Amino acid sequence: MDKIITAGKPIRCRAAIARKAGEPLVIEEVMVAPPETGEVRIKIICTSLCYSDITFLKLKDPPAFFPRILGHESVGVVESVGDGVTEVAEGDTVIPIFLPDCAQCGDCTSKKSNLCSTFPFKVSPWMHDGSSRFTDIKGETLYHFLFVSSFAEYTVVHMANVTKIDPVIPPNRACLLSCGVSTGVGAAWRSANVEAGSTVAIFGLGSIGLGVAEGARLCGATKIIGIDVNPEKFEVGKRFGVTDFVDSRSCGEKRLSEIITEMTGGGADYCFECVGKASLVEEAYASCRKGWGKTVVLGVDKPGAQLTLSSFEVLHRGKALLGSLFGGLKPKSDIPILIKRYINKELELDKFVTHEVSFEDINKAIDLLVEGKSLRCVVWMDK
Amino acid sequence: MDKIITAGKPIRCRAAIARKAGEPLVIEEVMVAPPETGEVRIKIICTSLCYSDITFLKLKDPPAFFPRILGHESVGVVESVGDGVTEVAEGDTVIPIFLPDCAQCGDCTSKKSNLCSTFPFKVSPWMHDGSSRFTDIKGETLYHFLFVSSFAEYTVVHMANVTKIDPVIPPNRACLLSCGVSTGVGAAWRSANVEAGSTVAIFGLGSIGLGVAEGARLCGATKIIGIDVNPEKFEVGKRFGVTDFVDSRSCGEKRLSEIITEMTGGGADYCFECVGKASLVEEAYASCRKGWGKTVVLGVDKPGAQLTLSSFEVLHRGKALLGSLFGGLKPKSDIPILIKRYINKELELDKFVTHEVSFEDINKAIDLLVEGKSLRCVVWMDK
Repeated sequence: MDKIITAGKPIRCRAAIARKAGEPLVIEEVMVAPPETGEVRIKIICTSLCYSDITFLKLKDPPAFFPRILGHESVGVVESVGDGVTEVAEGDTVIPIFLPDCAQCGDCTSKKSNLCSTFPFKVSPWMHDGSSRFTDIKGETLYHFLFVSSFAEYTVVHMANVTKIDPVIPPNRACLLSCGVSTGVGAAWRSANVEAGSTVAIFGLGSIGLGVAEGARLCGATKIIGIDVNPEKFEVGKRFGVTDFVDSRSCGEKRLSEIITEMTGGGADYCFECVGKASLVEEAYASCRKGWGKTVVLGVDKPGAQLTLSSFEVLHRGKALLGSLFGGLKPKSDIPILIKRYINKELELDKFVTHEVSFEDINKAIDLLVEGKSLRCVVWMDK
Repeated sequence: MDKIITAGKPIRCRAAIARKAGEPLVIEEVMVAPPETGEVRIKIICTSLCYSDITFLKLKDPPAFFPRILGHESVGVVESVGDGVTEVAEGDTVIPIFLPDCAQCGDCTSKKSNLCSTFPFKVSPWMHDGSSRFTDIKGETLYHFLFVSSFAEYTVVHMANVTKIDPVIPPNRACLLSCGVSTGVGAAWRSANVEAGSTVAIFGLGSIGLGVAEGARLCGATKIIGIDVNPEKFEVGKRFGVTDFVDSRSCGEKRLSEIITEMTGGGADYCFECVGKASLVEEAYASCRKGWGKTVVLGVDKPGAQLTLSSFEVLHRGKALLGSLFGGLKPKSDIPILIKRYINKELELDKFVTHEVSFEDINKAIDLLVEGKSLRCVVWMDK
């Protein structure tokens, strides 16, 4: 049978639509327009759930947008390309990544930045050009999410948000590299540049925190302290190289930073805030070693939240505070390195996948993450 | 005539004593005890004035202490050494430095820290052992200042606060390296590690800010923006490599950070806060380039002052905030390098010295600094 030519035409396929804040996703048929100039249309193989999907599903106020196709951790195959796309071709395996990488601007060509200037990252409900490629069968426009929208059999993504990968990595491992796990691993590797033999404190043992643990382990950290409100996380953490645990609800009269400072004989060399709580950033900053301690901020608090630091402490302690989006990774150059390290059996990804479901059961994947039962649940589009 | 042996005995000499908050210093005779174990007694050749001397002279509330011998920028010759001192001997030229460097602890042996753990820096009115080596002629104890107290013909300093130097550098240049100028130069060189061709914004063009300009010039920065409330500082700044000036009182409706961002096409690569105002740190942070900008904090606000940063900005902009005490310099290893660079005519120190007076006129030196007429006024003990 001849192959059906889909390029240049809209594709009718299934997508899981967030129609109303906090309600289950609805699998419906949608129309996916062909890619415009510089864009590609991707057949999603599988997608995994990240907590940001749920945060935006629950959101009632701006930047809430409905109806929307959520999802931003995925892997797929290029179905067709728009004008001007030469970097990938039909059939290539790609990871769509929320953080743009045009590979040409001052930031993308610098070793120091991963914040593309041509396509600045923002939590937009549109493609970069301010329009949508999705409509439902009634013709209503559907909003995009983080330039990816992977809860669909097909999606359109701008090339700045597409990284071509070696298909030797299994899809249910590759998809993890689009967001959470990479963010954690990258924060230890690229943002903090953790030195062998050092001490690391991780505030929050969700997937990002466990990614930091995995990254710190890869960098040769010898003491990796996990801090969480849920003591069950320690058992999980041990599999990721966490050597010590602090239950932040059982600190008594002591500040968390006092406990970490005692455990490390003066403060951790590197602290990572993976929860998104400004007050916890302050505690992480206080927990890191004078003279060389680095505190890396990976979480973001509510809009308008401020973090406060003592002017005296900042001057007198010689510490650094760093912000780290996507772990400081440059998608197009760093993700292939992480894949190589996975193939070389250095980077361990398997342990992050606790569940796998079919697309029909995507709401189960949400429940598992909300209930804290899963780390990463992979959703297969075709199974 | 035989040399008079002074070692082991108290020395009677002159000192300028701060007897009461805000009042002129009083030159009196004082007794300087012999150095204890690990200490040296130094005959001060000359001392320069730093604004911290005046801040502590004016201070009415704790950490105010009177009567006190202020002064912490100086150079001298070792008169005698206490037990266990092998690093220097009588006749050696030395710079006493407020920041301890025991050369042995984890911090002092690390390349990453300049914050000695054996003798932690603090604004103490005592020697490290909690006692004083000074009494007035009535026998009343006089307080020390920053472990140095150089407004005296002789002072006692712990070896952790003493750096031996090559006497080839003239004393009225050497003394500058004890605090302000080194702090500024070091902040650009060591703390920020300014790259050639980069853009620098300096908030506050006092001696520390001008030291930053000198350091940035040495590192090859091509655009050095000076920001000050006093437009006359621009003429001064030009001599230190400042290429552009912003009068922060003439910003109109714009935020200072907007102006800097416009002038630099996106933000300065490095920002230095040299005033000691938490709100200005926030402005400096907002002025530095996304992706790689570093903001270095050199000033300290009033006790208890907090600086606030937006949680969103910290995560999404990939910037670094660094605290820098003594410009991140390690006294015993970095000061000799700066002296070499002065001898090689790279580091320009001469332009910092605007006035020189004799010890009797030390209050004139204070007035000149308070009135903003001097950058550095050198006070000669013997002239």
